Amino acid sequence: MFISNKLEKLIESLSRFPGIGKRTAQRMAWYLLSQDQNFALELAETIKTTVQAFKPCSKCLMLSESDPCPICSSLMRDTDSLCIVESSADIQVIENMNEYKGLYFVLGHLLSPIDGYGPDQINAAALSQRVAQLMPKELILALKPSAEGEATIHYIWEIFKDKDVCITRLSTGLPFGGDLEYSSSNTLKSAWERRYGV
Amino acid sequence: MFISNKLEKLIESLSRFPGIGKRTAQRMAWYLLSQDQNFALELAETIKTTVQAFKPCSKCLMLSESDPCPICSSLMRDTDSLCIVESSADIQVIENMNEYKGLYFVLGHLLSPIDGYGPDQINAAALSQRVAQLMPKELILALKPSAEGEATIHYIWEIFKDKDVCITRLSTGLPFGGDLEYSSSNTLKSAWERRYGV
Repeated sequence: MFISNKLEKLIESLSRFPGIGKRTAQRMAWYLLSQDQNFALELAETIKTTVQAFKPCSKCLMLSESDPCPICSSLMRDTDSLCIVESSADIQVIENMNEYKGLYFVLGHLLSPIDGYGPDQINAAALSQRVAQLMPKELILALKPSAEGEATIHYIWEIFKDKDVCITRLSTGLPFGGDLEYSSSNTLKSAWERRYGV
Repeated sequence: MFISNKLEKLIESLSRFPGIGKRTAQRMAWYLLSQDQNFALELAETIKTTVQAFKPCSKCLMLSESDPCPICSSLMRDTDSLCIVESSADIQVIENMNEYKGLYFVLGHLLSPIDGYGPDQINAAALSQRVAQLMPKELILALKPSAEGEATIHYIWEIFKDKDVCITRLSTGLPFGGDLEYSSSNTLKSAWERRYGV
């Protein structure tokens, strides 16, 4: 094959991103090669300086350039609610919604013992500590509805169920704009069971 | 917003890739931040060394680490056919098919006067020169079926129509595995007009 090792390696690295298949990685690699070289060199530099600048916030564990992160250090946030998410990326999605003004805590992983993610990997001790310190009125479990998400929700609920805090989780059901026809049976079942009066 | 300039810039750069939307770029950026830093640093280095190593081949204009490229310098290729493609990435797709053993020529762009891509931008002079030098029996126009592709096919046909060379283009029709229901009317029309006996 005429593909060089360098190019193979670039394609392989790009295809390690979630949601990027081999074909997309190939297109990305060739795009990098075919553009003005400055685009690729600047991208390489941006990747380097960005990852070197970001560290977990010591309060919420979100990856941030400053410690505490801008959210934890803001005086405008409502300290009565703590939203628990899997990753820093989830915080960006929730912030984009422009609805929630409370604080966050990043687990880093969902509970999945067979993959080696136990209580230590989901930062359970740091979470307990943060909750004891903040004493929020509500813990919002914004975790994905999956086997791992459910296990994590149950695990966190066990920790805090006897504490004086309201524990909520996001609603499950049909995604907005989603066709019934393309819904998984789990999604449909959940929407069915949780149907409400109009 | 809590998103830093560095991260914004990384997301913006990643979303410049074809087929990568804002959301995918966000996920990629956060993935870079959340992985072991070595992954990101190695990726940055691979991007840099790869784009610096690749230059257009002086014969076919494919981006390659060597000049002439491995295909032009191979003694195993059939010099009787020259396949004309838009980009180096297209060559990889055709090579993966493992069917064609001839040579290539990369236009770099399709003809699109309103976007500023005229005969000079599609390397028409270099193509004429390459054809005069090689004297292939067949020119295979492997260009995409679109307004720009059709214009380019017509333009190249005009250049070589009186020369002693057979000019072919790829068949148009339904993609393999494609549902009629999801085909565009242009695709269906072309499949209909070019229907053949079973």
